[in-house]
Amino acid sequence: MTVLYNNPADFAEDQFTGFLDLYSDRLQGVPGGAVAHRSGMPQVAVVVGGGSGHYPAFCGIVGPGFASGAVVGNIFTSPSAAQVYSVAKAADQGKGVILSFGNYAGDNMNFGIAAERLRKEGVDTRIVVVTDDIASSPTESERRGIAGDFTVFKALGAAAAAGLDIDEVERIGRAANAASRSFGVAFSGCTMPGATEPLFTVPEGQMGVGLGIHGEPGIRDEPLKSADELARLLVTDLLAHAPSTDSSRVAVILNGLGTTKYEELFLVWKSVAPMLREEGLEIVDPEVGELVTSLDMGGISLTLMWLDKELEWLWTADAYTPAYRKQKSALTGLRPSLRAATTAEEHDDAPTPSIAAVPIAGLVLEGLRALARTMHENEFELGRIDAIAGDGDHGRGMVKGADAALAAAESAAAASAGPAWILRKAGQAWAAAAGGTSGVLWGAGLESAGAVLDDGATEFGRSELAAAVHAFATAITDLGRAKPGDKTVVDALLPFVDTLELSLMSGEESARAWVKAAEAANAAAAATAALTPKLGRARPLAEKSIGTPDAGATSFGMIVSAIGR
Amino acid sequence: MTVLYNNPADFAEDQFTGFLDLYSDRLQGVPGGAVAHRSGMPQVAVVVGGGSGHYPAFCGIVGPGFASGAVVGNIFTSPSAAQVYSVAKAADQGKGVILSFGNYAGDNMNFGIAAERLRKEGVDTRIVVVTDDIASSPTESERRGIAGDFTVFKALGAAAAAGLDIDEVERIGRAANAASRSFGVAFSGCTMPGATEPLFTVPEGQMGVGLGIHGEPGIRDEPLKSADELARLLVTDLLAHAPSTDSSRVAVILNGLGTTKYEELFLVWKSVAPMLREEGLEIVDPEVGELVTSLDMGGISLTLMWLDKELEWLWTADAYTPAYRKQKSALTGLRPSLRAATTAEEHDDAPTPSIAAVPIAGLVLEGLRALARTMHENEFELGRIDAIAGDGDHGRGMVKGADAALAAAESAAAASAGPAWILRKAGQAWAAAAGGTSGVLWGAGLESAGAVLDDGATEFGRSELAAAVHAFATAITDLGRAKPGDKTVVDALLPFVDTLELSLMSGEESARAWVKAAEAANAAAAATAALTPKLGRARPLAEKSIGTPDAGATSFGMIVSAIGR
Repeated sequence: MTVLYNNPADFAEDQFTGFLDLYSDRLQGVPGGAVAHRSGMPQVAVVVGGGSGHYPAFCGIVGPGFASGAVVGNIFTSPSAAQVYSVAKAADQGKGVILSFGNYAGDNMNFGIAAERLRKEGVDTRIVVVTDDIASSPTESERRGIAGDFTVFKALGAAAAAGLDIDEVERIGRAANAASRSFGVAFSGCTMPGATEPLFTVPEGQMGVGLGIHGEPGIRDEPLKSADELARLLVTDLLAHAPSTDSSRVAVILNGLGTTKYEELFLVWKSVAPMLREEGLEIVDPEVGELVTSLDMGGISLTLMWLDKELEWLWTADAYTPAYRKQKSALTGLRPSLRAATTAEEHDDAPTPSIAAVPIAGLVLEGLRALARTMHENEFELGRIDAIAGDGDHGRGMVKGADAALAAAESAAAASAGPAWILRKAGQAWAAAAGGTSGVLWGAGLESAGAVLDDGATEFGRSELAAAVHAFATAITDLGRAKPGDKTVVDALLPFVDTLELSLMSGEESARAWVKAAEAANAAAAATAALTPKLGRARPLAEKSIGTPDAGATSFGMIVSAIGR
Repeated sequence: MTVLYNNPADFAEDQFTGFLDLYSDRLQGVPGGAVAHRSGMPQVAVVVGGGSGHYPAFCGIVGPGFASGAVVGNIFTSPSAAQVYSVAKAADQGKGVILSFGNYAGDNMNFGIAAERLRKEGVDTRIVVVTDDIASSPTESERRGIAGDFTVFKALGAAAAAGLDIDEVERIGRAANAASRSFGVAFSGCTMPGATEPLFTVPEGQMGVGLGIHGEPGIRDEPLKSADELARLLVTDLLAHAPSTDSSRVAVILNGLGTTKYEELFLVWKSVAPMLREEGLEIVDPEVGELVTSLDMGGISLTLMWLDKELEWLWTADAYTPAYRKQKSALTGLRPSLRAATTAEEHDDAPTPSIAAVPIAGLVLEGLRALARTMHENEFELGRIDAIAGDGDHGRGMVKGADAALAAAESAAAASAGPAWILRKAGQAWAAAAGGTSGVLWGAGLESAGAVLDDGATEFGRSELAAAVHAFATAITDLGRAKPGDKTVVDALLPFVDTLELSLMSGEESARAWVKAAEAANAAAAATAALTPKLGRARPLAEKSIGTPDAGATSFGMIVSAIGR
């Protein structure tokens, strides 16, 4: 949702004023848009443009090596012919003007009218229309321009910066467009400033295939796919519409439309890149990020430009604009670190356990299985509790840690290790895999519990259990430095330890003592709802936390109960 | 909403694998994170880190002039001590290691444990904790680290790249942190991969003041503000917590948390920058964009780092990383265009109208007022219709054009212009202000209608009305090249013109003829619901459009009806 504006009707002008203030060191505002500051040598002016709402398109790519100027229309609306004319006049350096834009009726008209006017005044003006969107029409010339704007403008800008004449720059622009194909999907619509509803909605669990970049929905809805399946869809459909070329080198853009974030784009790239390589394509200087957006729309598009030598030279050329900066010299001379591969891994072997230790190893393994199972069952509930005043990662972190601990334990048990060794390996794996506060505490706790046991011992009784639990608790309280009442795991841990030790000392059977202690832990965890947090991420949100138990105390209660069962 | 993943539990690893594939020319993956490729000269290693989900923090800022390595935890979760240790070992160049991260319990523990282990192995290891978030605690040392991570890491990275020794780099990092303050607000929560609900929600029309970057909600809710008011809140609260310094030069970051888009950030910058300047501050190399995010959270934060000479040198130094690139030399030698200010404006005076023309000028003005009024009333309805298969900008575009046309007409009328002049000026203003397809068509139509009238004429009757309407229609059909049945404004325009001309020819009174023609236009506009679009942005979405009338035809019907009334 677009939430920040003063008068919604002034949104486009207001944001552009802020943009100009920010980048006044490299460009300047003129009526209708912006033009780049110039270096000494006159060049063909490459003037791009279209509506606002697509940043970095179009004003974000004005600068050395890229566009000479950008015409900035209202949101999703072609600029007027007068605006195009004004920006082109300001950008013209006496070498002619290329007007380039996506293929939309309004842009064709307004840029066309401006071109006529410029030509009448003797300015050599050419038009390069971008038509990369394979979903929009079977006829190439009728297709819309979407993220292919970026590959075409880059080729034009680099060609102009290289000092080529207008015939050459125009020819290259047309070649770049003929070599560019895009295809995308939408997950959610965008909201115009001041509107309360998005321009379109995608039904729950669906995606709009063949998105537009003006908030147009896809041309058909399909069930939402996994990242792998989506990558397959994008790659397959795009390659089915490849231009006829024998080039196997491609510029690639994986473009986010607005709310599809970098992490998601990288994740899809992990699938897209090998698929392209399997098709025999060589990826050249890929760009993964937000390049042509549609306000806060959720969506992703894949663009390929098949490269000949000329287009590859232009695609990889340096540029320096507000939103796009490439400087090959910055990377020259860098070399991978030799030390990187040498990070030490602990390699050591488990001591042979005593006969008495073997059944205990089985119990420890059972306990870790119960632990992991209950964390899987309660992952989202723990996340929900944690999110009320924290960061909501507790469930996920516990699952990750518990799974890693169990895997390490299973593998140690398979190698006939004893309980001490299993606990140590489980703790190390938990801390390494889970990270976070809970990860380091649980990891250290289990490792310490293992450290006080001896796999060669001939007896494992009440006192060994008490010692292990005590070591577990001490590691956590030492490391976390939390005191009772701080609303942390310690509030459930200490009642558990106290109850267990008391029961064991009074001669209670271990299993029954554990169940009693688990009940005490659960009651104490529930009672943390009344507390105000004193430590950790929940502290700044102390008041919001009241009424909700601590997630770490709750998960501890769940775990010791599950182990008891 | 986070929608792209395979197994949600593998989200952090999967996205990081894609990231490493993408930037293998400048960095390499190691267990636990990434380290930058090295240039020849050994330097102090600056290792930053924290959970995933904050891109570009933390792996996006690894590279020359910035971080030497980044430790990458699970989403919103501190990396483990083993991960920190592994990355630090790989990044170490024999000059010592600085570990820097935001102040969270898990990070403090895991980085702390790793530092101990590194020191035991003889690696000189220092810790610089970032505590910039003024909302999180009144005590500076207890504050969370949010976007101030960026200013502190930049200072550390630049100092290390400059070859300073570890004592100096550590001192500078602490100074940068002491000079940095951040404050932010949240508009909507973020959703963990695989979760169906966001970590928190902000009530409708509210914002969470004092956001966290791990999906923590704000510390209190307040009514949502205009961009100006929000800027005032951010600037005022931040300056109230300024460090004690006599520096008036500040590095500024206006940071978007995820779904708050560039356009909104620029718009807020338009308000923030003058407010800071009014406070006597000089803004140095401001950064407005997404620097420290929180998945798809909606929110914005303002960070200031008060600069002394040393910090300014480091803040403005070159860097080249996946997400942050600054190369001062790229801008040296650029100069503003001299032509920029010379764009011609038409300056001409209206001819004095005849006495007969004066009341007609009044009618034209009334008509334009009715036009503008009805577009304001129907702006959102027209946008809604347009959004079904188009880009939803029709209502906004018509309002913008109509307002500009009316303003130009009022100003011409105030200068006693006649109807022909008023129509010409209104048409020019419409096209210039509105852009888009409807803008150019309405602009050309009105201008052409004015062109066939003569302000010096002594009679204005049926034939002048017919001629003006005919010229209006011809301009639109010529320029738009739409045929009847293409589902455009032409489908309402031609019935209107035909009916009007027929009525006028049969001797009907002008006002009655107009009303009849308007009825025909409305009926024809409604009938476009059955048509399939042949032109314009709706074409690729032809099927979705069936059942909804064309927005341009509908607005035309509304306008001629309103003028008739």
